[in-house]
Amino acid sequence: MAARPITFLSDYGYVDEFAGVCRAVIARIAPDALVIDLTHGIERHAIDRGAEVLANAMPYTPAGVHLAVVDPGVGSPRRALAVRVATEDRMLVGPDNGLLWPAIEQLGGAVEAVDVSLSRFRLEPISATFHGRDVFAPVAAHLARGASLDDAGEPVDADALFRLEAPEPVIEADRVLAHVVSLDGFGNATLDLSERHLPETGLRLGRKLTIEAGGAIHDAVFTLTFADVPDGELILYENSYGSLAVALNRGDAAGDLGLDPGTQVTLRPAD
Amino acid sequence: MAARPITFLSDYGYVDEFAGVCRAVIARIAPDALVIDLTHGIERHAIDRGAEVLANAMPYTPAGVHLAVVDPGVGSPRRALAVRVATEDRMLVGPDNGLLWPAIEQLGGAVEAVDVSLSRFRLEPISATFHGRDVFAPVAAHLARGASLDDAGEPVDADALFRLEAPEPVIEADRVLAHVVSLDGFGNATLDLSERHLPETGLRLGRKLTIEAGGAIHDAVFTLTFADVPDGELILYENSYGSLAVALNRGDAAGDLGLDPGTQVTLRPAD
Amino acid sequence: MAARPITFLSDYGYVDEFAGVCRAVIARIAPDALVIDLTHGIERHAIDRGAEVLANAMPYTPAGVHLAVVDPGVGSPRRALAVRVATEDRMLVGPDNGLLWPAIEQLGGAVEAVDVSLSRFRLEPISATFHGRDVFAPVAAHLARGASLDDAGEPVDADALFRLEAPEPVIEADRVLAHVVSLDGFGNATLDLSERHLPETGLRLGRKLTIEAGGAIHDAVFTLTFADVPDGELILYENSYGSLAVALNRGDAAGDLGLDPGTQVTLRPAD
Repeated sequence: MAARPITFLSDYGYVDEFAGVCRAVIARIAPDALVIDLTHGIERHAIDRGAEVLANAMPYTPAGVHLAVVDPGVGSPRRALAVRVATEDRMLVGPDNGLLWPAIEQLGGAVEAVDVSLSRFRLEPISATFHGRDVFAPVAAHLARGASLDDAGEPVDADALFRLEAPEPVIEADRVLAHVVSLDGFGNATLDLSERHLPETGLRLGRKLTIEAGGAIHDAVFTLTFADVPDGELILYENSYGSLAVALNRGDAAGDLGLDPGTQVTLRPAD
Repeated sequence: MAARPITFLSDYGYVDEFAGVCRAVIARIAPDALVIDLTHGIERHAIDRGAEVLANAMPYTPAGVHLAVVDPGVGSPRRALAVRVATEDRMLVGPDNGLLWPAIEQLGGAVEAVDVSLSRFRLEPISATFHGRDVFAPVAAHLARGASLDDAGEPVDADALFRLEAPEPVIEADRVLAHVVSLDGFGNATLDLSERHLPETGLRLGRKLTIEAGGAIHDAVFTLTFADVPDGELILYENSYGSLAVALNRGDAAGDLGLDPGTQVTLRPAD
Repeated sequence: MAARPITFLSDYGYVDEFAGVCRAVIARIAPDALVIDLTHGIERHAIDRGAEVLANAMPYTPAGVHLAVVDPGVGSPRRALAVRVATEDRMLVGPDNGLLWPAIEQLGGAVEAVDVSLSRFRLEPISATFHGRDVFAPVAAHLARGASLDDAGEPVDADALFRLEAPEPVIEADRVLAHVVSLDGFGNATLDLSERHLPETGLRLGRKLTIEAGGAIHDAVFTLTFADVPDGELILYENSYGSLAVALNRGDAAGDLGLDPGTQVTLRPAD
């Protein structure tokens, strides 16, 4: 049986060899598994950003094993998980710190989960600080080769996985209080808001609005795409994962408006 | 039939998951296609730099499908192309903004071209801002699996593809006016000049010259390689793609001389 | 016979296409070889850091061909090597500037070595500045396909390969003088010290110590893992490759203490 594909996301960055060594470990165990690096550029320790990127990417990935490591608690008693979800028997492997949760939820929820901290698949001697290499990568590789979750670790309650508290937007007729979830490399800011929040509000595609952030109020347009407005104009738009986002056409919205993950922004229809 | 290899170049960078998600999309459609990332580090929106790197890389790549996405006009009515060239039936896939042109020219010209904006291979729902994922990657993957251009889109005139205007160097006996085409990560500056421009001039390998840039005049040597001069010396040399370039041995020529893409430099033989 | 896997490490970075073009060259020669990028983020020209990372990674990589290019002397008469080691018939390919040496030593020493500068596998015309593409990658690819060292170049004395001088720590009962070998992207500083140096000293796991660097003295704890101390606390710990290292929990030890490769640090047991 051919190995299943493995996707791999982490905050290991590209300067160090951490991600490359994990891939080498996988290649020793499952040489025929296709490994797809989603990104290793997640900001260091940014569990929430890693969780968002992982969940967003899921519909575009082949069914297989999804390895994710953003693990500030490595060496602490946080659990190490392998989880099977309802959709296509996909498996997720990573720390039990909320990183995997939005992806699991999006894939129909956890059907089965095991703690792989003491997995018989882990490398010996195990280091205290590099569980990506010593625990998560080898477990993912063995699962890709067809090992069962039972083989990989000790059963845990699939309904008791750690999840992050997410902020909730406040929807009112004449204003929407939202929060910046994340920034991408272009300075576009994703909000905790999607089109389904808008019917009760005065915010409409093609209409003007104001965006208040950090005490300053900015004019913007709710538009379909960057190309609809001149360079330097501020827009609200639906990003490529279906979330509403704020961008400056050919500019850096986050830098100009002072937006960071968690920043509250207030959107108001402009009449 | 095995899938053809796919090379992939973009300005998506490494912080975000954009390139990784495109690879995931390819893996769903053509799991056995070898995907070779040329680079995703092209400066954002730098169509000219992306075009140069893509064309330079072509002779070193296996024949197959060449996917390239530097696409500041995504969402505008710019066409999305798949092009077949004379050489080895290679296919190029990307926006019709000049990015593909130098590579197409280098590969013997376009034999057949289609607009894939509405391709039946594109993902639904299509986003307004991420055509790498929704249009270009799936089209490239289907072509790698053997789909014909006819299947991929609507025929367009292969002789009417968009091309960027390139600056022209001015060649005189006692001076050459050239332009910086691009900088690499070491601060070496490629000029729009190659050895074929030099016979009429006094510039000769092994001889001294002056390089004027931004009002300042610098002494340099026209040499074969960095190792021919002491550290910190300025050289003119033929770079690894056959273009003439300016470098500071173990230093940063671009930083020291204030060179940027487009900067005019004047080379004069020193007697 | 299937091609052997190839690992690839360099200082080419991710902005330029250098590493990608080398991978393309490999794909033309050995399309079925699995290529594992260890990292291309080695600091430019940092042979010592490249050598350390390569040697550290070896035990985690599949047996095959190990391509490494950190090559400030490209174009000088430095030799270009392909080396076969005792362990698992692994081959190493790269410049003879010390980069390969620690890995060779770790793999049981060189059994056979050839100079591949004029290899019949190199690309023509050969450039003066990009031997990764023109010499090392094609040689590695042919070796991965089963070519013998004899085929790849001219025999050289396997006992006379270039090696870097490494600093030596000074071990005394009440203090240890060590040196920073390298920094990782998190600001953790690896020392030229491992647990085997400590029995004669007063440094013990679980005990306090002081770390003197740049004239300042800092309190620290010798601990197993980050999770053992509060955020912002300085620790000495055994890193994931078995070396002792200095870290600031969820902070940047290198930045705060002014540590660079080569910095001398003095460790003293605190009573």
